[in-house]
Amino acid sequence: MQKERKKNVGIFIFDLVEVLDFSGPYEVFSSARLTKQSTSSIQNKPQAFNVFTFSEKKKYISASGGLKVKSDFIIKNCPALDILIIPGGIGTRKLLENKKILNWLKLKKNVDIVASVCTGSLLLAKAGLLEKKKATTHWGALKLLKKISPSTKVIKRNKYVFDKYYTSAGVATGINMSLHIIENLYGKTIAKNTAKYIEYKY
Amino acid sequence: MQKERKKNVGIFIFDLVEVLDFSGPYEVFSSARLTKQSTSSIQNKPQAFNVFTFSEKKKYISASGGLKVKSDFIIKNCPALDILIIPGGIGTRKLLENKKILNWLKLKKNVDIVASVCTGSLLLAKAGLLEKKKATTHWGALKLLKKISPSTKVIKRNKYVFDKYYTSAGVATGINMSLHIIENLYGKTIAKNTAKYIEYKY
Repeated sequence: MQKERKKNVGIFIFDLVEVLDFSGPYEVFSSARLTKQSTSSIQNKPQAFNVFTFSEKKKYISASGGLKVKSDFIIKNCPALDILIIPGGIGTRKLLENKKILNWLKLKKNVDIVASVCTGSLLLAKAGLLEKKKATTHWGALKLLKKISPSTKVIKRNKYVFDKYYTSAGVATGINMSLHIIENLYGKTIAKNTAKYIEYKY
Repeated sequence: MQKERKKNVGIFIFDLVEVLDFSGPYEVFSSARLTKQSTSSIQNKPQAFNVFTFSEKKKYISASGGLKVKSDFIIKNCPALDILIIPGGIGTRKLLENKKILNWLKLKKNVDIVASVCTGSLLLAKAGLLEKKKATTHWGALKLLKKISPSTKVIKRNKYVFDKYYTSAGVATGINMSLHIIENLYGKTIAKNTAKYIEYKY
């Protein structure tokens, strides 16, 4: 049996990205291990995913609260994506006017798994990906999501929604969504072990 | 009435710090607002805390999974601390042999609030802060905590423990602990509003 290539998880970061929106999925995907046995010694096992951050043009990003992060790649040299994570944060509002990013997102609509966290769904909506689809976002942006994409069926009170694309509710629910994606790919045991490692209820 | 000075929350980061160990508290403290009314428009209100990261000597840190973070300060020029957060991660094992860091931690034992996340408590233990105190850590490091500090009463199954110092269990429980610290300082409503903003059960 041929060993499956590790899936690439690319997390898009930008100025004023919400810290937990990108760091939650980063933690989940980078601490997942493909072992049936739960272990705390994850550093002795290979990562299940190849996780990296990328940004538009400049690598130095100032996240919410001022946290300084340096992306691994910029769009131009970003490796092929199997899973694309679009976090939210107040920085999304500026990106809603960034035609280059919206066009780039449109081109990414056929990546195997596209998943937004929090107000990251506003970008998917603006790029047209959520037309006539169910989707969610942070509770404070539900109306804005509907305004940007009137044909979207906006779901309230779910931690995440799947309708061709994944969208999660606010901030921490990106962790739930990431665990769910892992469950869909590798089964419940692997997702539960990951949740146990990070001591997150799942 | 004199307006209270904003409390400084310093989060210590180091190579192989666990991503969610430091980013969880960062998210909580930087999104807290001192308003009785719950709001999603937190960017229109001043932050409740002045939150920053700092590292030992070099500013560029490679966290778990390879996330690249740049600290705001190094120890030498770090502002006075009201709250000191010591995250965990496999990088703590190397710091357990770093006498300069352990001596520095000893000098910080009188900071108003010292709180470790996950295996950050191993550092507090090694610096002697947890002698004859109750404390916890990640479930995979409970025995190691006891070994480092035999007089510590190691608590299992609590999300966090307070006995002069705060210590939390693994990774995500640093979020619970941070919300609890905010509740102790500013009351339940402020903590609940912060939890609601980040959509974390509290």
